[in-house]
Amino acid sequence: MKEIAIIMGSSSDLAIMSEAKDIIETFGLEAHVEVVSAHRTPEKMVEFGKNAKQNGFKVIIAGAGGAAHLPGMVASLTTLPVIGVPINSSNSIEGIDSLLSIAQMPGGVPVATVAVNGAMNAGLLALQILGTANSQISDKLESYKNELKDKVQKMNDEL
Amino acid sequence: MKEIAIIMGSSSDLAIMSEAKDIIETFGLEAHVEVVSAHRTPEKMVEFGKNAKQNGFKVIIAGAGGAAHLPGMVASLTTLPVIGVPINSSNSIEGIDSLLSIAQMPGGVPVATVAVNGAMNAGLLALQILGTANSQISDKLESYKNELKDKVQKMNDEL
Amino acid sequence: MKEIAIIMGSSSDLAIMSEAKDIIETFGLEAHVEVVSAHRTPEKMVEFGKNAKQNGFKVIIAGAGGAAHLPGMVASLTTLPVIGVPINSSNSIEGIDSLLSIAQMPGGVPVATVAVNGAMNAGLLALQILGTANSQISDKLESYKNELKDKVQKMNDEL
Amino acid sequence: MKEIAIIMGSSSDLAIMSEAKDIIETFGLEAHVEVVSAHRTPEKMVEFGKNAKQNGFKVIIAGAGGAAHLPGMVASLTTLPVIGVPINSSNSIEGIDSLLSIAQMPGGVPVATVAVNGAMNAGLLALQILGTANSQISDKLESYKNELKDKVQKMNDEL
Amino acid sequence: MKEIAIIMGSSSDLAIMSEAKDIIETFGLEAHVEVVSAHRTPEKMVEFGKNAKQNGFKVIIAGAGGAAHLPGMVASLTTLPVIGVPINSSNSIEGIDSLLSIAQMPGGVPVATVAVNGAMNAGLLALQILGTANSQISDKLESYKNELKDKVQKMNDEL
Amino acid sequence: MKEIAIIMGSSSDLAIMSEAKDIIETFGLEAHVEVVSAHRTPEKMVEFGKNAKQNGFKVIIAGAGGAAHLPGMVASLTTLPVIGVPINSSNSIEGIDSLLSIAQMPGGVPVATVAVNGAMNAGLLALQILGTANSQISDKLESYKNELKDKVQKMNDEL
Amino acid sequence: MKEIAIIMGSSSDLAIMSEAKDIIETFGLEAHVEVVSAHRTPEKMVEFGKNAKQNGFKVIIAGAGGAAHLPGMVASLTTLPVIGVPINSSNSIEGIDSLLSIAQMPGGVPVATVAVNGAMNAGLLALQILGTANSQISDKLESYKNELKDKVQKMNDEL
Amino acid sequence: MKEIAIIMGSSSDLAIMSEAKDIIETFGLEAHVEVVSAHRTPEKMVEFGKNAKQNGFKVIIAGAGGAAHLPGMVASLTTLPVIGVPINSSNSIEGIDSLLSIAQMPGGVPVATVAVNGAMNAGLLALQILGTANSQISDKLESYKNELKDKVQKMNDEL
Repeated sequence: MKEIAIIMGSSSDLAIMSEAKDIIETFGLEAHVEVVSAHRTPEKMVEFGKNAKQNGFKVIIAGAGGAAHLPGMVASLTTLPVIGVPINSSNSIEGIDSLLSIAQMPGGVPVATVAVNGAMNAGLLALQILGTANSQISDKLESYKNELKDKVQKMNDEL
Repeated sequence: MKEIAIIMGSSSDLAIMSEAKDIIETFGLEAHVEVVSAHRTPEKMVEFGKNAKQNGFKVIIAGAGGAAHLPGMVASLTTLPVIGVPINSSNSIEGIDSLLSIAQMPGGVPVATVAVNGAMNAGLLALQILGTANSQISDKLESYKNELKDKVQKMNDEL
Repeated sequence: MKEIAIIMGSSSDLAIMSEAKDIIETFGLEAHVEVVSAHRTPEKMVEFGKNAKQNGFKVIIAGAGGAAHLPGMVASLTTLPVIGVPINSSNSIEGIDSLLSIAQMPGGVPVATVAVNGAMNAGLLALQILGTANSQISDKLESYKNELKDKVQKMNDEL
Repeated sequence: MKEIAIIMGSSSDLAIMSEAKDIIETFGLEAHVEVVSAHRTPEKMVEFGKNAKQNGFKVIIAGAGGAAHLPGMVASLTTLPVIGVPINSSNSIEGIDSLLSIAQMPGGVPVATVAVNGAMNAGLLALQILGTANSQISDKLESYKNELKDKVQKMNDEL
Repeated sequence: MKEIAIIMGSSSDLAIMSEAKDIIETFGLEAHVEVVSAHRTPEKMVEFGKNAKQNGFKVIIAGAGGAAHLPGMVASLTTLPVIGVPINSSNSIEGIDSLLSIAQMPGGVPVATVAVNGAMNAGLLALQILGTANSQISDKLESYKNELKDKVQKMNDEL
Repeated sequence: MKEIAIIMGSSSDLAIMSEAKDIIETFGLEAHVEVVSAHRTPEKMVEFGKNAKQNGFKVIIAGAGGAAHLPGMVASLTTLPVIGVPINSSNSIEGIDSLLSIAQMPGGVPVATVAVNGAMNAGLLALQILGTANSQISDKLESYKNELKDKVQKMNDEL
Repeated sequence: MKEIAIIMGSSSDLAIMSEAKDIIETFGLEAHVEVVSAHRTPEKMVEFGKNAKQNGFKVIIAGAGGAAHLPGMVASLTTLPVIGVPINSSNSIEGIDSLLSIAQMPGGVPVATVAVNGAMNAGLLALQILGTANSQISDKLESYKNELKDKVQKMNDEL
Repeated sequence: MKEIAIIMGSSSDLAIMSEAKDIIETFGLEAHVEVVSAHRTPEKMVEFGKNAKQNGFKVIIAGAGGAAHLPGMVASLTTLPVIGVPINSSNSIEGIDSLLSIAQMPGGVPVATVAVNGAMNAGLLALQILGTANSQISDKLESYKNELKDKVQKMNDEL
């Protein structure tokens, strides 16, 4: 069963958001990927958010550009943790509008915001969240951390 | 019947948003005022947006601070023109986050954004919209414009 | 008769502003398109603004880049609703200067500001304004909204 | 046992960060609160980060102002999810420096960033993360969400 | 005869703009001071701009806040040099909106922009401009420059 | 004799700054062009500034990028009006750093700042300043203004 | 002999800049303190910069607000390391203009920029620079670092 | 022995950071170059920082992009002067996030910040620091300063 849902406002966001999918698959999990637009399909979004928990999801990753409302709106509809990815899309001002639209949520409805275009980190954060109750994922995260160190070592070897 | 609805995310926004109500009343109209929170009452917001037209509203004014999603989300749910008021609330970064969250809407779902804390102008814009088909309002707007000129004249007299 | 006027500071803005014209034509209406420069033809602009209503226009869309004064100045000259489109032109700082120059209007003279380069949304907003008193346009806007939903469905089908 | 750790760079951050502690206690949990400074006690911070998991923590909330390095550095030392709270402290530029310092993490090391001064939301996010594997917390989050709705209702009653 | 005109959008700008008047009077000249609002009295502004030269003015100082259109619009109506003063008024975002609205003029219509709230410097710049053809003013500017040096000397004496 | 000096921090700025030279030559005047670097040739800059008036210059145009100190420093050394051109050079952050470095001068030492990369407008402003005492230039500026109008007319003819 | 010079554009900057003096005195050294204004006393500044090394200074700390040119200009006149302190003075835009004016220096003329209002850190940096060749200072810096740790310990004791 | 260490978060930063190495070699010194990542190799970074002084380094240059923590963290671990280079990397917002993350350090732990991508200046600053106790380097810096002047002369010859 897929415990992580990756949603985005448009299929044009897939170029960035697929990095979340990829890292999750690297860890041996599968993610549900779907276009859910806050502004074009608001009612579908409401259904998605309200049913997310019953549908078995444990974490939601939502990416959006410009006036990025998807992550915050889904967060208003579920008690699951929602990770927001600001996307520097063609209608965005260097991604800073999306970052502020996602991060500056009011008290009561948090969104876990990552860096502009930081979809890979959104995937990792979702894995960390699942890892709080799943030692297999948690162990793989330790390995992943060690690989990061090895990459730096290789960089120095090649310098 | 009230043709203009003024909604806002919290009653703490009323200090600013009441300026919209006041200018509308100055023109002899009444506005419906209601707290509708995108993040705390998302489903109520959906109902509000979907039914706004049937309920007789012709224009919606929506004010919000921080990650201000209310105007854009209501705009996604109605074909009525939606006017967005960025509010420099306590959880806002000089109102610039709200301005970007409201103005930077994606293609297909416009929000008519006014200045930070510009609730009075939101009221006037609503009147201008109604005035496109109501010569009584339109005539009063001409008078209002003349009063603006008179105020400048008075300022010079007092200089 | 053309009820919507689309004006812009330079013919170089047409690449963006034609998106407003296109969406309006999609709805079966025609828009008047004209170059009216606040800074190069200020008196022509005054004439345009003052006569806009008598000339039969009901909504004005004005696009401008850099220190974008056209929308606000036309708004000062008419009681018609004016929609402002910030253009990220070659002399603009990521469009943020234009956005602030258009949105931050003083009390008494609103401009309905859309996103940077958001000319299509300006066109839609004009249609929404006309739609408040024209059920034919209003109905088409409902259909348009449904098409937006369908596009998202297609995106998911293709995923 | 305390599963949530709240750390901050200075006791002067406690005014903001105690909101995280308060909301967690409202849910019947206890949080470990400690001053851990990235810049003044870097080695203590390393020890804290490395041992956080063994010490039984499942989520870490880290608040910091100015060049806010604490959340990102702790995230580099643990596989636990780390929530970062940008604090608009006296040495901060409207909190925007802290927001960027916390959110703009490189690939491989995510930080779940909340709004400037958004400590309460950081607490709620921590509860949501624990709630993914703890139905008791998850149920309370549902109740909390309902209370948010009720507050809006009360606001309207008082309007 | 008054060769310098000081105009501003509102009498509320006088607190700042009087610094321009004061420095000009210190140099033994008089300035014409008038409220001319781009947005409330656009036609008066056009008349002011078009007649400025015939009325004997040689330099115009224009102050405005928010979407500050007055300096640029007057510049579009005259061949006289126009000095723009961005005012950090109550409806301004730290004055940065006004600075961009005044400085970012398109090719063909320059505005000589000074610092946010820099009305005194606007006055000095007007004097420098007159000083290019008036040796009396020019000589006084030399004295003024020496006084600046003396002030620094006094500061060090008092240290 | 050349009454306008155009200086810049590096010959790499000439691509932008030559627009000032070109417009001045269009008006039948000649401009002195020289590389004077605030940071690489500070003493030469001091000599340039101190002697500018004796050398017959009446206006100085200074262009610079990044931490753009040249305009303000030359202004500190002369009583002539100094026009500053912020240049969006390779070491600049969208030109906003240069704009702030040039415009935000302290009381006593004004710089007439134009738009980012606005060298042509700097040339026009210099001509306007000379035009305050030279009716030949002033008349040509009127013709130039009319040409701007004609260009807009042509744009509309071609639409 | 005083090896560290602290200069600033105005005695009004002393409230901030005295923090540099204080920390230096805490380490048993004395600092030369002087008002040297880039814009009001440019020639004095040139003399100061050119003679700084012969006068026995080894490090220069320069504080300035707004268009902060003092640190960069002094750096252009000496081969000594220059530390720049952006000051959020009354004519500054949240200090961000000063930060950019000081940090964004062109290749060839570095300024060691510290945080907005970071005068204490400027003093410490000067001590670190002297400490590279003075083990007594270097040892005291180690003690200072330990005191920072102790302060955090005390904060936790008091929590 | 190498007295200057150049570290960076990733080998992808080498394109920029090699400019520091190059200028140092031009002065006849050698620099130690190493990839040390704050976020991927935090413990290696701690070892590097703690041992930097014993290993003979006198100055550390650290470059990083995005949420640039490396310079500040190394500064927290050593009493040596640390020079920070904000890098406008692919995950950076025009370099402004890195500039703020590096410059806005809290009291007690300074970082000598240079311009975005200003690695050459970081190298020069390191040489200036060594030059405070090494007349050979100091003399070469004088020659370098003269070369800067000559370059400007050549630019003028070629104009």
